[in-house]
Amino acid sequence: MSESFSELQPFIGITTFARRPHTRDLRGADVAIVGVPYDGATSYRSGARFGPRKIRELSLLLWGYNNPLAVAPFEALNIVDFGDVEIVPVNIGKTFANIEKSIDAILDAGVTVAALGGDHSIALPLLRAHRRRYGPLAVVHFDSHPDTWDTEYDGEPYSHGTPFRRAIEEGLMDTSAYIQVGIRGPTSSADDLKDAQEMGAHVITIDEAMSLGVTSVVERIREKAAGKNVYVSFDIDAVDPAFAPGTGTPEVGGFTSHQALQLVRGLRGLNLIGFDLVEVSPPYDHGDITAILASNLVFEFLSLVALKKQRGT
Amino acid sequence: MSESFSELQPFIGITTFARRPHTRDLRGADVAIVGVPYDGATSYRSGARFGPRKIRELSLLLWGYNNPLAVAPFEALNIVDFGDVEIVPVNIGKTFANIEKSIDAILDAGVTVAALGGDHSIALPLLRAHRRRYGPLAVVHFDSHPDTWDTEYDGEPYSHGTPFRRAIEEGLMDTSAYIQVGIRGPTSSADDLKDAQEMGAHVITIDEAMSLGVTSVVERIREKAAGKNVYVSFDIDAVDPAFAPGTGTPEVGGFTSHQALQLVRGLRGLNLIGFDLVEVSPPYDHGDITAILASNLVFEFLSLVALKKQRGT
Amino acid sequence: MSESFSELQPFIGITTFARRPHTRDLRGADVAIVGVPYDGATSYRSGARFGPRKIRELSLLLWGYNNPLAVAPFEALNIVDFGDVEIVPVNIGKTFANIEKSIDAILDAGVTVAALGGDHSIALPLLRAHRRRYGPLAVVHFDSHPDTWDTEYDGEPYSHGTPFRRAIEEGLMDTSAYIQVGIRGPTSSADDLKDAQEMGAHVITIDEAMSLGVTSVVERIREKAAGKNVYVSFDIDAVDPAFAPGTGTPEVGGFTSHQALQLVRGLRGLNLIGFDLVEVSPPYDHGDITAILASNLVFEFLSLVALKKQRGT
Amino acid sequence: MSESFSELQPFIGITTFARRPHTRDLRGADVAIVGVPYDGATSYRSGARFGPRKIRELSLLLWGYNNPLAVAPFEALNIVDFGDVEIVPVNIGKTFANIEKSIDAILDAGVTVAALGGDHSIALPLLRAHRRRYGPLAVVHFDSHPDTWDTEYDGEPYSHGTPFRRAIEEGLMDTSAYIQVGIRGPTSSADDLKDAQEMGAHVITIDEAMSLGVTSVVERIREKAAGKNVYVSFDIDAVDPAFAPGTGTPEVGGFTSHQALQLVRGLRGLNLIGFDLVEVSPPYDHGDITAILASNLVFEFLSLVALKKQRGT
Amino acid sequence: MSESFSELQPFIGITTFARRPHTRDLRGADVAIVGVPYDGATSYRSGARFGPRKIRELSLLLWGYNNPLAVAPFEALNIVDFGDVEIVPVNIGKTFANIEKSIDAILDAGVTVAALGGDHSIALPLLRAHRRRYGPLAVVHFDSHPDTWDTEYDGEPYSHGTPFRRAIEEGLMDTSAYIQVGIRGPTSSADDLKDAQEMGAHVITIDEAMSLGVTSVVERIREKAAGKNVYVSFDIDAVDPAFAPGTGTPEVGGFTSHQALQLVRGLRGLNLIGFDLVEVSPPYDHGDITAILASNLVFEFLSLVALKKQRGT
Amino acid sequence: MSESFSELQPFIGITTFARRPHTRDLRGADVAIVGVPYDGATSYRSGARFGPRKIRELSLLLWGYNNPLAVAPFEALNIVDFGDVEIVPVNIGKTFANIEKSIDAILDAGVTVAALGGDHSIALPLLRAHRRRYGPLAVVHFDSHPDTWDTEYDGEPYSHGTPFRRAIEEGLMDTSAYIQVGIRGPTSSADDLKDAQEMGAHVITIDEAMSLGVTSVVERIREKAAGKNVYVSFDIDAVDPAFAPGTGTPEVGGFTSHQALQLVRGLRGLNLIGFDLVEVSPPYDHGDITAILASNLVFEFLSLVALKKQRGT
Repeated sequence: MSESFSELQPFIGITTFARRPHTRDLRGADVAIVGVPYDGATSYRSGARFGPRKIRELSLLLWGYNNPLAVAPFEALNIVDFGDVEIVPVNIGKTFANIEKSIDAILDAGVTVAALGGDHSIALPLLRAHRRRYGPLAVVHFDSHPDTWDTEYDGEPYSHGTPFRRAIEEGLMDTSAYIQVGIRGPTSSADDLKDAQEMGAHVITIDEAMSLGVTSVVERIREKAAGKNVYVSFDIDAVDPAFAPGTGTPEVGGFTSHQALQLVRGLRGLNLIGFDLVEVSPPYDHGDITAILASNLVFEFLSLVALKKQRGT
Repeated sequence: MSESFSELQPFIGITTFARRPHTRDLRGADVAIVGVPYDGATSYRSGARFGPRKIRELSLLLWGYNNPLAVAPFEALNIVDFGDVEIVPVNIGKTFANIEKSIDAILDAGVTVAALGGDHSIALPLLRAHRRRYGPLAVVHFDSHPDTWDTEYDGEPYSHGTPFRRAIEEGLMDTSAYIQVGIRGPTSSADDLKDAQEMGAHVITIDEAMSLGVTSVVERIREKAAGKNVYVSFDIDAVDPAFAPGTGTPEVGGFTSHQALQLVRGLRGLNLIGFDLVEVSPPYDHGDITAILASNLVFEFLSLVALKKQRGT
Repeated sequence: MSESFSELQPFIGITTFARRPHTRDLRGADVAIVGVPYDGATSYRSGARFGPRKIRELSLLLWGYNNPLAVAPFEALNIVDFGDVEIVPVNIGKTFANIEKSIDAILDAGVTVAALGGDHSIALPLLRAHRRRYGPLAVVHFDSHPDTWDTEYDGEPYSHGTPFRRAIEEGLMDTSAYIQVGIRGPTSSADDLKDAQEMGAHVITIDEAMSLGVTSVVERIREKAAGKNVYVSFDIDAVDPAFAPGTGTPEVGGFTSHQALQLVRGLRGLNLIGFDLVEVSPPYDHGDITAILASNLVFEFLSLVALKKQRGT
Repeated sequence: MSESFSELQPFIGITTFARRPHTRDLRGADVAIVGVPYDGATSYRSGARFGPRKIRELSLLLWGYNNPLAVAPFEALNIVDFGDVEIVPVNIGKTFANIEKSIDAILDAGVTVAALGGDHSIALPLLRAHRRRYGPLAVVHFDSHPDTWDTEYDGEPYSHGTPFRRAIEEGLMDTSAYIQVGIRGPTSSADDLKDAQEMGAHVITIDEAMSLGVTSVVERIREKAAGKNVYVSFDIDAVDPAFAPGTGTPEVGGFTSHQALQLVRGLRGLNLIGFDLVEVSPPYDHGDITAILASNLVFEFLSLVALKKQRGT
Repeated sequence: MSESFSELQPFIGITTFARRPHTRDLRGADVAIVGVPYDGATSYRSGARFGPRKIRELSLLLWGYNNPLAVAPFEALNIVDFGDVEIVPVNIGKTFANIEKSIDAILDAGVTVAALGGDHSIALPLLRAHRRRYGPLAVVHFDSHPDTWDTEYDGEPYSHGTPFRRAIEEGLMDTSAYIQVGIRGPTSSADDLKDAQEMGAHVITIDEAMSLGVTSVVERIREKAAGKNVYVSFDIDAVDPAFAPGTGTPEVGGFTSHQALQLVRGLRGLNLIGFDLVEVSPPYDHGDITAILASNLVFEFLSLVALKKQRGT
Repeated sequence: MSESFSELQPFIGITTFARRPHTRDLRGADVAIVGVPYDGATSYRSGARFGPRKIRELSLLLWGYNNPLAVAPFEALNIVDFGDVEIVPVNIGKTFANIEKSIDAILDAGVTVAALGGDHSIALPLLRAHRRRYGPLAVVHFDSHPDTWDTEYDGEPYSHGTPFRRAIEEGLMDTSAYIQVGIRGPTSSADDLKDAQEMGAHVITIDEAMSLGVTSVVERIREKAAGKNVYVSFDIDAVDPAFAPGTGTPEVGGFTSHQALQLVRGLRGLNLIGFDLVEVSPPYDHGDITAILASNLVFEFLSLVALKKQRGT
C-alpha cells in the first residue's frame, strides 16, 4: 500500500510524514512522528492546530539523505507516522491527559517521539511522559520567549507561556541542564528573565547568540547537556518572522533559517531522547516557508537519532 | 476626544465600532456593541477571536443612513462600544462566566446588546443572560448548521455545535418560536435535523428558502415570532462562502449577501431584544469582504432597534 | 513585432490589452484602450493605480468572439492600446489636465475611448473631453454609490465621490438621460439619494433592480438613452464583493457577474460614444477574479462598438 | 489503524478522502477515489496538480449524511482512497498511459471511479478506460468551455481544451447523449460552439441555463441520458469564479454553488458509471472555498452511486 | 474605561497604540503617538495610509519591558495616542498644513512626537514643526533611498522622494549632522548620491554598513549627532523586503530586523527630540511581520525617550 | 511610441523589461531579454510560467544607474525585450526546439541573451545554443540543488533536476570550469553530490559559502572561470525562501539577498557570454519580493555586460 518514497514526486500521494507508514502498531519502530493539533492556549493568533498537517505535507520535499551529517535517517531508522493525538479544544486538562496517554504508550514501546505542535503548552504533557520514562530531563529550549511565566489570565495555570515553569515545579527537569536559546523581545517586566534564571535556566539571549556565533552557542549547550537525557523543544518563533512568519506570537530580530539548522545539527553526539517542534501556524504562513523549515528541523532531529542509533548508545 | 463621524474618511482614526465612544459607562446608552473574542470551541478552523476587532475596523465604512429602512441608527440611538469581554482561551467555563457577567450588567442597565463573536458557542451564555432578563426567548437563528447537536468530543457539553441544544435543555428558549434558517450540508446522520425539529426548531433548509424566496421566509419567521421577545443569532456561515469566506466551517450552497441583508431587514416590526453575529474568522477572509458583510448586518440590526425605539415599544 | 493573437496561450508574451498594438499613432484606429492609473481620490483603500496594468494582463484570456452578441470585436474594429495617461499622484488638477489633453487628442482623431481606471474621480475629465466633442451626454452609470455627493473633506471639490455632481454643475451631462444603476448601502443621510434625483438622476437601486430583473432594468435604460450620445461609466463596485473583491470601497448586496454582463450587453443598439471601467484595485483582488470580470466588461463594450460600426451609425 | 470518522474533528488526522482507507487492495470496494495530479496541459494557470491533495484535505468536513438525497454514502458504500496515479509531468503520453492502466485495473475489479484532477486533459484517458468496460458513453459535461477544440499549439493533439473532440474521434462517446452545460465566455470564433454541436454535443449555454432554471436543465439532461451508461465530467470552472476562484482558466458569469449542487443531485436515477472533478487549482484558491465546493460535489456523486446501489441496479 | 495593559491578551480590546489612552488632552503627557495616514505621494505602491492603524494593532504584542535597554517606557513615560491627523488625499499642501498644525500643537505642549506614516513625504511637515521648536535639526535617516531627489513628475516639488532636499533648502536641518544609513539600489544617475553628499548628507551605503558592522555604524552616527537635537526618520524600506515586505518601494539587499533594532538602540544617549516611522504598507504585508517590526522600532524609540527622561535631560 | 524611462513612475505604462522596446528586430542590439515561460518540468510546484511576465513588471522599479559598479546599463547598452519564446506545455521536446531556434537566431545576430525562466530545465537548450556559438562553456551555477541528477520519473531524460548532467553528457560544458554555488538540503543519497563532483563540478555548499564569506567564494569562482567564456545560470532558490519565497522547490538555509547581489557583482571582469534567471514562481510569491530580487539580479548581469562592452572585450 505504501508508495515508494524515492520514485514519487512530492506533489503526488497521501501526506503522511515523509511517506512513512501511518500506523499505531509500534513493533519494530524506532521513532514515531506524533501530531498534537492543539492551539487553545495561545495568547495571540490561533491556527497551530493545522501545524501537524502542514508539516507532514511539506515533509514530502525531504529527499532523504542528510549531507552535513552524512546519514540517511529514513534508511537508518524505522520511522512511523502515528497520526494525531485526539485533542479536546475546549478542555486543556483532557487534552493533556490524552497527550500523556499516547506518549506514555509510545515511550513504553521503546520508541522515540518527535512531536509536531500545536502551541507550546503541549510541551508540559510531553515532558511529563518523558520524565516518567527517563527521570529528570535536560532540556534544550529554542524560543524567543522564556515560557517560564507564572499564572496567567484569570488564574489558569496552563497556557503556551507557562509550560517550563510548570515542568520545573513538577520536578520534570534537571534544571542544571536547562538552556533557553534565542530569547528576545519585550517582556512583562525586568523579572521575567530573572525568574527564568532563578528557576535554573541558562538563558542565551538572541543578542548573546548573535555576538557569540552559532558555534559557541552550540558549545555552551553541549557543555551543559553532555551525558544527560536531553529533550529538545523547538518553538519556531525562535527563528525570525522573515523565515518563519507562520506562527502565533512572532518576535522580530531572531535567527536565520541557516542558523536554526546549525543549532539543531550542533546537538550531534548528545543523548537525545525526545523532541517537539511547536507553534507553526499555517494560516499565517506564506508559500509554506515556515512549514518547510519546520519539516527540515524535524529531519535534522531524525538524523541525530539515526546517528545515535549508529553509535549504538 | 471623539472624532466627528461624518467628517473623517474611513482609513483615518481609531477603530471603535462606527466611531462610537469606547466606554463602560452605560448611562444614557441604548445599545452596547460587545466583542466576545473566543474561538476555543471551533471544530475546524480557529481565528474567530479576531472577529470583533475586524468587524469594528470595517464598520468605519458604514456611512450612517439606512435607505431601505429610512432610519439613521447612530442618530436615533445612543450606541457605545463596550469593548471586549475578557475571555479565557483555555477554559470555556470561565469564559462563559465572564460573558454572562458582562452581559448581565449591560442588560441590567437597560441597554440592548449587539454581540460580535467569536465562535457560536458564545450564544449560550448570551442566551442565559437574556433569559434572566426577558424570560424564555423566541430565537431567529441564521446558520448553515443546526447547532443543536448533542455532546461532542470526549464528553464535553459545550462547543460551537451545541449551544441551542443546551439552551433548550436549560429552558432558555420559547421553542414554539425557534426558527433555523439556511440549514444545509452533510450532517452526522439522518437524526440531526430530526433532533432539531423534535426539540422544537422550525427548520427552514436552504433548499426551502431558495424555493420559497426571501419574502416568504421572512413571513414565516414573522408569524412564529410576532409578539414575542426575539433574540437573533446570525452565524455568518449561513451565507455562501463566496460572500463570506472568512469563517471556520464554511458550507457551500448558501445565501447571497443581498438575501442576507433582506432577511435581517425583514425582521422589522418584531420585538428584538438582543443580537449576536458570530463565526467571522479574519485569517480566512480576503479583501475583508466577510467583515464588511458582518458590519452591515450589525448595522441592519441597529437600524431595527432604532425603528423599535421610534415606535416607542 | 506583434505576436499572433490566436496562436499564443495567455501566459505567453507582453501584456498590452488583448495583444493589441501599443501605439500612440491613431491613424486608422477605431478604439483606443487608455489606462488612467490614478488612485489619489479614494476615500478608503488605494490601489486602483494598478487597475489598468492588471486588466491588461487578464485581457489575454479573452479569446475574441462574443457568442451572445455574435461579433468579433478584434476583427471588426481596429483597436490600439494607447498606454497610460501620465498622471501626477500629488496633484489632482494636473492629473485631470493630463487626462483631458490625452482624451481630447484621441477623440479629435475620431477614435472611441475605452478608459481603464483608476478611481472614479477620473470620470470628470473624461466627461469634459467627451462633452467637448459630443455635446451634453446621456450617462449610464453603474455603481453602488451615487457619486453625486457635494464638497468633501476640507473643501476639496474633487474626489471619487463627486464626479457626477461636478459634471452636472459643469453642464457636461444631459440630465434627462442620466441613469444610476445598482445604488445601495448606507449613505451620509436621507438626502444623498434625493440630491441625486433632484440633480436629474434616474436612480435604480439594487433592490429595485433585483425586483425588476435585469431585462426590465435594461429596458428602462434604453428608454431614457435611446437616440442620444451615451457615455457608460462602470464602477466595478456595482458588482457584489464576492464577484469583485478587488475594489476600494466594497458595498455588499450587489449584482452577480452574470447580471453585470447582461446589463452591459443590454445596451446594444444605443449610440455609445465612450466608456470607463473604474475602481479595480488589484492589491485587494484574489485569483485576479475582479480583473477578469473587468476585462470581460471592457470586451462587452468593445463588442457593442463593433456592432455599432457594423450598423454603420 | 484507521481513525473513527465520527469521533474526530476535521483538523485532526491524516488526509485521505473523508478518512477512507488508503489502499490499492480493491476487494470488496464499491468506489475508488483516484487522484490524477497532472496540470501539464493547461493553457493559462498551472497548479491543478495540487487539486487531489487539497480536495482530500477539505473532504474531512463532510459529515456523512446527505439530507436532500437521504443517503449516507460512507455507510452505504465501501469507498477506498486509491491514492494518486503516478503521472509524468513532461510527457502527456506516458501520463495518459499510466492513468489508463490504473483506471482499467480499478474498473476490472468492478469498482466505480471518482477521479480528482488535475486539468481537464485527463478526461480523455478516463473516457478511454470507461469505454473499454462500458461501451460508448453518455457524457454529462459541466464546463464553461466546450473543450471540443481541435489541434492546438504547434500541432499537439492533447491539451485541456481538446479531450472531448478526441474522445468523439476515438468513438468513446455516444454523441446522441452528450450534454455540455454552462458554456460561456469568448471563444476563438463563431465556429467553436457550432463545431461542438456538429460533433453531436447538446450545448446548454449559461444564458439558456439561467433562463430555463436548474430544474429544466436537469430535465433536459435526464431526457438525453436516461437508460444509458452515464459518465459525468465536472470542470469546476462551470461555477462562477466568485464561488470557485481556485481554477486555471476562470470564466465569469457562471453558476452559483447552490446551482452546482442541484445540478449534480438532479442526476439521481441515471445510470452513473464514472465521474471526474477537474481543474481545481489550489494556489489560486482562498479560504479553500473551491476545494470545499469540489469535495461536496464529489460527495453528491458518491451519494448518487449509493442510491444506485440501493436501487440494486 | 481603559483596560489594564498587563491583564489582557493581545487579541482582546480596542487597538490604540499599546493600549495607551486615546486623547487629545496632552496635559501631563511625555510622548504622543500620532498617525499620519497619507499615501498620496508614493511613486509605486500606495497603501501606507493603513500604516498607522496596523502598527497600532500589532503594538498590542509589546509586553512593556525593554530588556537590552533595561527600561519600561510605558511606566517611565506618560504616553498618549493622539489618533490620526486629518489628511486630505487629493491635496498634499492642505495635508502638510494639517500635519504641521497638529504637530505644532503637540510640541507647544512640551510633548515629544512619535509619528506613524504614511509615506515619506510627511517627514517634511514634521521637520518644519520640529525646526520651529528646536532650531536646525540633526537628522538620522534610515532608508534605502536618499530621498534627496529634486523636482519630480510634472514639476511637483513634493513627493516621497524629495522631503530631505526640501528640508535642507528650507533650512530645517543642521547638515553637518545629517546621516543617511542603508542607501542602496539603482538610482536615476551617478549624481543622486553625489547630490545627497553635496547637500551635506553623510551617506552610509548598505555595503559600507555591512562591511563596517552595526557597532561601527552606530559609532559614526553618534560622533556626528552627539550634543545636538536629533530627529530620527526611519523608512521601513531600509530593512530588507524579507523582513519588511509591506512597503511601497521595496529595495532588496537591506538590513535584517536584528540589525534594525540594534541601529535604533544604538542611538541611546543622544538627545532625541522626534521620530517618524514611515512607509509601512499593510496591503503588501503578510502575517503582519512588517507591522510587528515597525511597532518594535517605535517601542525602541520610546525606550530611548524614557532613558532620556530618566537621565533628566 | 516608447515612453521615456526616466519620466514615468513605475506604476504607469506597459510592462516590457525596464521599458526597453519590445521587438524582434535585433539590428544594433547588444542584449536581448528573452522570456521562457515553461514550467512543465517541475517536480513540486508549478507556476514558473508566469516568471518572465512578473519579472518584467517589477523591472520598472530599476532606476537605471548601478552605484556599486558605477555603470548605467540602459545607456551603455542597446537592450531590447524580445518577448517570450513560444513554448508548448505538453511537449518538452518541441519546447526545447523552439527555445534553441530563438536563441540561435539571437546569438547569430551577435546579441547577448538574458533569459528569464521558467523552470531550470530550460538551461539545457540555452546551453546547447550557446555551445554552438562559443564552444564548451564555463558555467557558474547558483542553486540549492545540484541539478545533475540522472534520469528521473519513468525514464524521462529531461526535468528541472537534470539539465547540467545532460549538458555535460552532450559536451556543452568545459567541466574544468563548472562551479555550483549554494548547494544544500537533503538529497536522494550520498551519491548526489559525489556524482556532481565526479562529472567535474566544483561544488561550494552553502555551509562552505557561509564559512568562507562571499568575497572568498567570488575569488574561487574567478580563479576557475578566468579567461573562459562564462555562462551564468541563477536558480532563484539559491537564495533563502525568506528572500525568495516565490519558487517551486524552496530549500531553507540559503543566501540573503545582499549576498546574492554581491555574488553576481563579484563576477565583474569575467568574460560573460550568457545568463539565465530561473524558477521564479509568482503564485507563491508575496509582495512581489522574489520578482523584485530577480529583476535586480538581471540588472546586475546587464551591468556586467555593460562593463564588458566598456572594456571593449
